[in-house]
Amino acid sequence: MPEAVLCEPKSDAELTQVLVDLCGAGGPVLLTRLDPARLGRLPDDLVDQLDLDPVSCTAILGGCLPERPGLVGIAAAGTSDRRVAAEVARTLEFSGIDHDMFIDIGVAGLWRLEAHLDQLRAVDVVIAVAGMDAAMVSVLGGLVSAPVIAVPTSVGYGVAEGGTTALHSALASCAQGVTVVNIDNGFGAACAAVRMLSLRSS
Amino acid sequence: MPEAVLCEPKSDAELTQVLVDLCGAGGPVLLTRLDPARLGRLPDDLVDQLDLDPVSCTAILGGCLPERPGLVGIAAAGTSDRRVAAEVARTLEFSGIDHDMFIDIGVAGLWRLEAHLDQLRAVDVVIAVAGMDAAMVSVLGGLVSAPVIAVPTSVGYGVAEGGTTALHSALASCAQGVTVVNIDNGFGAACAAVRMLSLRSS
Amino acid sequence: MPEAVLCEPKSDAELTQVLVDLCGAGGPVLLTRLDPARLGRLPDDLVDQLDLDPVSCTAILGGCLPERPGLVGIAAAGTSDRRVAAEVARTLEFSGIDHDMFIDIGVAGLWRLEAHLDQLRAVDVVIAVAGMDAAMVSVLGGLVSAPVIAVPTSVGYGVAEGGTTALHSALASCAQGVTVVNIDNGFGAACAAVRMLSLRSS
Amino acid sequence: MPEAVLCEPKSDAELTQVLVDLCGAGGPVLLTRLDPARLGRLPDDLVDQLDLDPVSCTAILGGCLPERPGLVGIAAAGTSDRRVAAEVARTLEFSGIDHDMFIDIGVAGLWRLEAHLDQLRAVDVVIAVAGMDAAMVSVLGGLVSAPVIAVPTSVGYGVAEGGTTALHSALASCAQGVTVVNIDNGFGAACAAVRMLSLRSS
Amino acid sequence: MPEAVLCEPKSDAELTQVLVDLCGAGGPVLLTRLDPARLGRLPDDLVDQLDLDPVSCTAILGGCLPERPGLVGIAAAGTSDRRVAAEVARTLEFSGIDHDMFIDIGVAGLWRLEAHLDQLRAVDVVIAVAGMDAAMVSVLGGLVSAPVIAVPTSVGYGVAEGGTTALHSALASCAQGVTVVNIDNGFGAACAAVRMLSLRSS
Amino acid sequence: MPEAVLCEPKSDAELTQVLVDLCGAGGPVLLTRLDPARLGRLPDDLVDQLDLDPVSCTAILGGCLPERPGLVGIAAAGTSDRRVAAEVARTLEFSGIDHDMFIDIGVAGLWRLEAHLDQLRAVDVVIAVAGMDAAMVSVLGGLVSAPVIAVPTSVGYGVAEGGTTALHSALASCAQGVTVVNIDNGFGAACAAVRMLSLRSS
Amino acid sequence: MPEAVLCEPKSDAELTQVLVDLCGAGGPVLLTRLDPARLGRLPDDLVDQLDLDPVSCTAILGGCLPERPGLVGIAAAGTSDRRVAAEVARTLEFSGIDHDMFIDIGVAGLWRLEAHLDQLRAVDVVIAVAGMDAAMVSVLGGLVSAPVIAVPTSVGYGVAEGGTTALHSALASCAQGVTVVNIDNGFGAACAAVRMLSLRSS
Amino acid sequence: MPEAVLCEPKSDAELTQVLVDLCGAGGPVLLTRLDPARLGRLPDDLVDQLDLDPVSCTAILGGCLPERPGLVGIAAAGTSDRRVAAEVARTLEFSGIDHDMFIDIGVAGLWRLEAHLDQLRAVDVVIAVAGMDAAMVSVLGGLVSAPVIAVPTSVGYGVAEGGTTALHSALASCAQGVTVVNIDNGFGAACAAVRMLSLRSS
Repeated sequence: MPEAVLCEPKSDAELTQVLVDLCGAGGPVLLTRLDPARLGRLPDDLVDQLDLDPVSCTAILGGCLPERPGLVGIAAAGTSDRRVAAEVARTLEFSGIDHDMFIDIGVAGLWRLEAHLDQLRAVDVVIAVAGMDAAMVSVLGGLVSAPVIAVPTSVGYGVAEGGTTALHSALASCAQGVTVVNIDNGFGAACAAVRMLSLRSS
Repeated sequence: MPEAVLCEPKSDAELTQVLVDLCGAGGPVLLTRLDPARLGRLPDDLVDQLDLDPVSCTAILGGCLPERPGLVGIAAAGTSDRRVAAEVARTLEFSGIDHDMFIDIGVAGLWRLEAHLDQLRAVDVVIAVAGMDAAMVSVLGGLVSAPVIAVPTSVGYGVAEGGTTALHSALASCAQGVTVVNIDNGFGAACAAVRMLSLRSS
Repeated sequence: MPEAVLCEPKSDAELTQVLVDLCGAGGPVLLTRLDPARLGRLPDDLVDQLDLDPVSCTAILGGCLPERPGLVGIAAAGTSDRRVAAEVARTLEFSGIDHDMFIDIGVAGLWRLEAHLDQLRAVDVVIAVAGMDAAMVSVLGGLVSAPVIAVPTSVGYGVAEGGTTALHSALASCAQGVTVVNIDNGFGAACAAVRMLSLRSS
Repeated sequence: MPEAVLCEPKSDAELTQVLVDLCGAGGPVLLTRLDPARLGRLPDDLVDQLDLDPVSCTAILGGCLPERPGLVGIAAAGTSDRRVAAEVARTLEFSGIDHDMFIDIGVAGLWRLEAHLDQLRAVDVVIAVAGMDAAMVSVLGGLVSAPVIAVPTSVGYGVAEGGTTALHSALASCAQGVTVVNIDNGFGAACAAVRMLSLRSS
Repeated sequence: MPEAVLCEPKSDAELTQVLVDLCGAGGPVLLTRLDPARLGRLPDDLVDQLDLDPVSCTAILGGCLPERPGLVGIAAAGTSDRRVAAEVARTLEFSGIDHDMFIDIGVAGLWRLEAHLDQLRAVDVVIAVAGMDAAMVSVLGGLVSAPVIAVPTSVGYGVAEGGTTALHSALASCAQGVTVVNIDNGFGAACAAVRMLSLRSS
Repeated sequence: MPEAVLCEPKSDAELTQVLVDLCGAGGPVLLTRLDPARLGRLPDDLVDQLDLDPVSCTAILGGCLPERPGLVGIAAAGTSDRRVAAEVARTLEFSGIDHDMFIDIGVAGLWRLEAHLDQLRAVDVVIAVAGMDAAMVSVLGGLVSAPVIAVPTSVGYGVAEGGTTALHSALASCAQGVTVVNIDNGFGAACAAVRMLSLRSS
Repeated sequence: MPEAVLCEPKSDAELTQVLVDLCGAGGPVLLTRLDPARLGRLPDDLVDQLDLDPVSCTAILGGCLPERPGLVGIAAAGTSDRRVAAEVARTLEFSGIDHDMFIDIGVAGLWRLEAHLDQLRAVDVVIAVAGMDAAMVSVLGGLVSAPVIAVPTSVGYGVAEGGTTALHSALASCAQGVTVVNIDNGFGAACAAVRMLSLRSS
Repeated sequence: MPEAVLCEPKSDAELTQVLVDLCGAGGPVLLTRLDPARLGRLPDDLVDQLDLDPVSCTAILGGCLPERPGLVGIAAAGTSDRRVAAEVARTLEFSGIDHDMFIDIGVAGLWRLEAHLDQLRAVDVVIAVAGMDAAMVSVLGGLVSAPVIAVPTSVGYGVAEGGTTALHSALASCAQGVTVVNIDNGFGAACAAVRMLSLRSS
């Protein structure tokens, strides 16, 4: 499994110490939930060693892992789910795995999803990123036979606020055999795909 | 609006008294959530005056209201949602309104819904009855332009138990302008359709 | 249905890209939940093309849709519900539909609601905007026979914080046939009214 | 304050022991939540000493307390709230306090409440018993100036199941100075009225 | 009942308009939840007419109501509950009613409460302000026979965060006849006391 | 730690198999949550080897563990908490530890608790068993300096139903250093006391 | 994917009709959540065609699907989780996939899990079945590199009642790349494994 | 028990007054949840008398209590739990009790915990600080026989946000006799250890 550090809950002092240790060891390591606004409060010489990506709030130290076979399809229901989808993509990239991304294919406009169906049926694993009602998860689960990993997102307001509705909707999906990770956990979904793709060569 | 009595929370003594009063007045009135198992504990002469329907757990006293123009489509995601759908149908029948019913068209098998799409686009109002993730609500909302009223059902287990997931999913629907009623409230959805159909002749 | 963009969950970069695309297409489109404080962080040439309304946090690009027949009554329980009521009004305006607005007619002072009863009985659809206990929804639902769409608002503190109490109260309304949309979803309620008003000419 | 025993959570053995002790002391004492179906499992000689009321599920041992001045109005929104209202009435009777009862005056039919308004304005304390959305509480609170004690009831289904919606609605009431007791706690509301009425002679 | 305005949910523009109207009418009126930090964003000539109290975040316009007989005891469990207790005190002052205040008498140090017991038994109404476990409510309810109104506060962290634990604890109090208002609703508790004290002269 | 088996979630077939294995090994073992109503559905020759206690729903096989020094005080707020208190007592007895029990000393009648205060201050560990608002936990925690373990119980209705209010109240206790176990987990509280008493001889 | 019918929410009449249709078609089909107690209420000639398994509450009609390569390890934390584990096993058997089962290896006795570690590291997919705190999920996730699918179970009481604690614990697992299905959804976990194992031959 | 002040919920004015009183009395007293960012808003002459620790957000006034026998082991699952662990350590230091600390020994990497097992088995009391799934609590509870006090932390996101998952997981622990304190309540856990260690000399 890829080595990774979750930056968000750490104080600046704690994160600095972690970076000192990681830069000493040289990586490769993935930093997630690294708010770009924090970078100015960390030592420049450490930050300079990081390969930063502001959209996904990730950084890679010491380069990516060797390429591995397999193709993951990332389906995001709305443009607002892009940030979580980007965390999926970046974790896969770090793990040496290829991906295709499909943004804004939520089922309120079913034709957008159907336009990409052949591509979605061609991948090894589908990661479905969706907030609000997460209805895309069930529709996708019924249309593809590959493993489908749902990532509920916290996008939304009212009953959708915080992502619990999307989470429960994905868990209660009427499509068989869909699995789910924690809200906004794009990193975890990608790690699950890494585990699954190891079956290809077994 | 149709006159109706919710039987479930009333004790046998309370319900008997209500029936005495209603039979005296002669109706027309609709009784909902009348568990057939209770009928043996109520006076026979009162029960004999009721037009009973065990599937929807309803009874009509004094005949239906006059026929009114308009056609309602009732879409039920699974066979287990049939009982709530039957309450919708029976309330419409009592209100003098025609309906078409489509059972087991949940989106895990999208082709079943699509097979009925022309019919669903021909009705005046769509009532979408769905439990679990209620994903059918968003898909339908995106495919038809008529009013869509969602009835979340309590069918399901785990996070779906009791219907809260279906309710929240319908409220957070990514389709525009879908409205929602309480869990299992088929009666209320039909009443809402009655309100809406009054616009036809206004 | 009107084309619309929900701005709130999008980052400045994402929103800028959306605006570039929309301005290229020319509209008409409605932007909702566009916090006026964000405008300074978006390109001036794009912002200049928007018809902004700070109270409802909406903007219209490319003008409104053609006028359509029908009159919607917007009833707001308190002055604090005005912002959600304004989103309803603005969405109707964009959709080419006329409305009357009634502010601060909550039922703690029942005479204020009763003073407007004749007007409320004259509209085609009533949209009831209320936070806290949302008691106005049931009272209105009992007094008018037109469709009533409840928009619970997040106004309030303690058990009312976030709008869940208002939402549940509206869903459990003792008035028959009231339908409900998500908390603070004035846009959705207006879209539902647009769907319903299409019945007038059917 | 009246001495009282809550029977529901006690086992038959525990309740029998409590009755032995109470009958030995001779009362006066009020037993609440005494399901009539349990009486056959308790010793006859003890049960024979009780003044039983099956509607309110209460029993009085040793007679009522001396009469005290004051009049309490009990307003119940629906016929299904009658059982809780009966617990209020019975506790007041045991405490020596007079009451008037108004059943089925929920606000979906506002005229029923208004028909009793003069009577409700004439009492010393109003106890408002309501389930579902508990909208009657706010309407009453705005129309009378006496203390209003809300008793949310567990009547209802879906989001209303268990009474939490009614509880939260009453706590968030837009009417000033309404106080609330636990769900279905008719006994507690009556005790609160007893406390308040002691101010009459102070 | 006292006329009052809840300022918190109103925007600066809405609040300014309300103040213009109120200053024109001349009061008397009580403004609650008026964060002192907002005053600089409101017109000086309006603010100058207000009698401000920063601890309770209230302001009075046009003087207090005439004095009325009765004495209310305000018991606050911790020093952190002082702000809510101050809202109670200020509302009573505005309503013309006298009060005694007892701060920091929570039951983890039972002797502090017992030191004030004679004083607490001498008042007409007790308002118990408590966060965390709100255990003081039950202890007070068992020691005094006057009406006890509990105001749960949002003070606390973890399971106590937001005040729900204190609210539920007060509602489930093992002391008979305690009533409860919404979390942090010191204004509402004082209004309830005003209603109750009107019984003194009836 | 004592060996124990939780019987409740096991089917009759599963429990029979467990008993066969345990009787073969000879114990000593404690069975908890063994509903006496199930005994008739288990093989007689196995049941005959059990030392049953119907109040606590426990059974001991193979005798108790050797006596150990230490004295635990069990304080139960109401008579309805007796069953959980009995599980505590029985687990201690099985573990070879002595206890004193104090029933019905809830703080709505503070004098009952105070009457036993000297005894409660003389024990090594206090286990406080309370439902509803669990206010006894904080009062006890402030009055004794020994370890206090709270066992919230599921006794109660409305907001107290299921024991969550008691649990949260105990966790948010204003008394320092009180610890808590799961709702109705008398067994766990006794085990915690066993762990603590091992410090006596260390 | 295997064809399956969820029997639990269907009425006897609905289930009979489903069985008639299925027997006519001849299968193969898997029936889940078929309570053996219901069999007596279904037509004998239909029941006779079913291959019943009372532990997992499943039935197979028309034989199993052809054998497929792959080995799934089923790890159950406690004996009470056996029923859900049996549903996993039976669904795999129906799908033509081999499995090993490991019962009662929860982490309170870590050595039991470690005793089976070599076997658990040899399977293609691990399905971790656990209730209560579901701590076994994280420990397993850290020890094996194959895909780990968590099935939280509803076994437990107090805060564990219904399985939400186990569900949330699994979703928040500190082990990377664990995925989760709905509470008690052994069928869904097995279907997810079927999807994953299809990668072996791709 | 140590005297302590919880600073967080107090306003600057309230905290200043408390400090004036405490400095006058001279201590010894422990201040918890004292955000270092607040110090600039408090009078310098008061702040100068405090022994501050920014990691744990605590301050000591008037020195520590006399040393007492006993050794507490503090186990923290992740580096992000360090702040709560520091509050435990500082409270113990103030109370005159020695401790060993073990950081980042969560069970996703079981070998890290096992590396410290001998040390953890040598202490008198174990305090287990863990967020997310809190799985470390159960593993530790099964491996050591000393008292184990769990402190769930609010570290995490999605379902783990706020610490409720960790709290429930600890309460539902499959290890016998683990006790729990409120989320992030390091102070309370240390106080509980102080109570327990008093048994050593009894």
